[in-house]
Amino acid sequence: MATNITFHPGAVMQDERAEHLGQKGATIWLTGLSASGKSTIATALEQHLLHKKLHSYRLDGDNIRFGLNKDLGFDQASRVENIRRIGEVSLLFSLSCSITLTAFISPYISDRDLARSLHEKHSPPIPFIEVFVDAPLDVVEQRDPKGLYKKARAGEIKDFTGVSAPYEAPAKPEIHIRTDEVDVKGAVAIIVEYLEKQGLIPA
Amino acid sequence: MATNITFHPGAVMQDERAEHLGQKGATIWLTGLSASGKSTIATALEQHLLHKKLHSYRLDGDNIRFGLNKDLGFDQASRVENIRRIGEVSLLFSLSCSITLTAFISPYISDRDLARSLHEKHSPPIPFIEVFVDAPLDVVEQRDPKGLYKKARAGEIKDFTGVSAPYEAPAKPEIHIRTDEVDVKGAVAIIVEYLEKQGLIPA
Repeated sequence: MATNITFHPGAVMQDERAEHLGQKGATIWLTGLSASGKSTIATALEQHLLHKKLHSYRLDGDNIRFGLNKDLGFDQASRVENIRRIGEVSLLFSLSCSITLTAFISPYISDRDLARSLHEKHSPPIPFIEVFVDAPLDVVEQRDPKGLYKKARAGEIKDFTGVSAPYEAPAKPEIHIRTDEVDVKGAVAIIVEYLEKQGLIPA
Repeated sequence: MATNITFHPGAVMQDERAEHLGQKGATIWLTGLSASGKSTIATALEQHLLHKKLHSYRLDGDNIRFGLNKDLGFDQASRVENIRRIGEVSLLFSLSCSITLTAFISPYISDRDLARSLHEKHSPPIPFIEVFVDAPLDVVEQRDPKGLYKKARAGEIKDFTGVSAPYEAPAKPEIHIRTDEVDVKGAVAIIVEYLEKQGLIPA
């Protein structure tokens, strides 16, 4: 039986955890229109961090909408609750010293600001890095990999962000990436450089 | 700017993640009466794993009830939803290759079985290790660090597990610890040994 059990009374402090694990936690909140490149960038960034042996986890529609938030619909209250829960879970992941990536359209400033405030009002505050994944509507509408814009234009999808529902662009995102001008590799490099400069990951 | 960005198309596979990070994920679900020792064991186990530079995170009342689940009350539907969400979040943490610890009374077999099924029905399945943190009622009632049993006996707290609400003991927990017979160090050693034998953490 293991005999080398060491511990002290009380919960693990945040700086103690970061020291043991050699990394700090942070939430990288990607926001932008459908087909702007959020999931592609998040997936590539997650891989890059894992290759560096850094813990990172990506929350997106696939693992949230069919799991934690499968009880939620698409009415306004559900929309707010959807983003609130994602904000809470991303905070928990970042507290565990993971680089947490979220890839949701999250079109409303108020919803994103709630997620931010959960991080910034935490004691100690946890970095919340809002990344505006930006491409003009006509560009994403031409990409339209799932045919969603076409359906929205045909009226088959209601309240579709950019077509029949607003997208409120971030006023002061920590990072602004134009995906019609920068490729995936370039986008990942921009975020990695930011994380390094902030001392969140080793340079 | 970072120029060594590497990635492949598509999401990170579970075995790829485990290989990069040098650890697998698993959920260790502690269940037992109030004051049975769940939080104490979870806190000590978390510290032990962090000292070994293994990612681990503990979900408990403090970080769940005041965050993700602060919208929930204590009626039966809320109780089920509380454990469902904890099950979903612990699955996400374990998918990120963290050793995830949950410390909730979780008195009902059906609730715990739902949490288990989320893990075991996932593709690939994620280990779900139910730990029965067991001490006789008269022992925990004597400990009563927060005076909750006293209040429950006085009728000041309703539906209190073990006093005025049932505790359904696990029929076949992966691990059974009698905390009136084993101290915290011993309890942690039992769980660590199990994790090592299962190949979930390095021996």
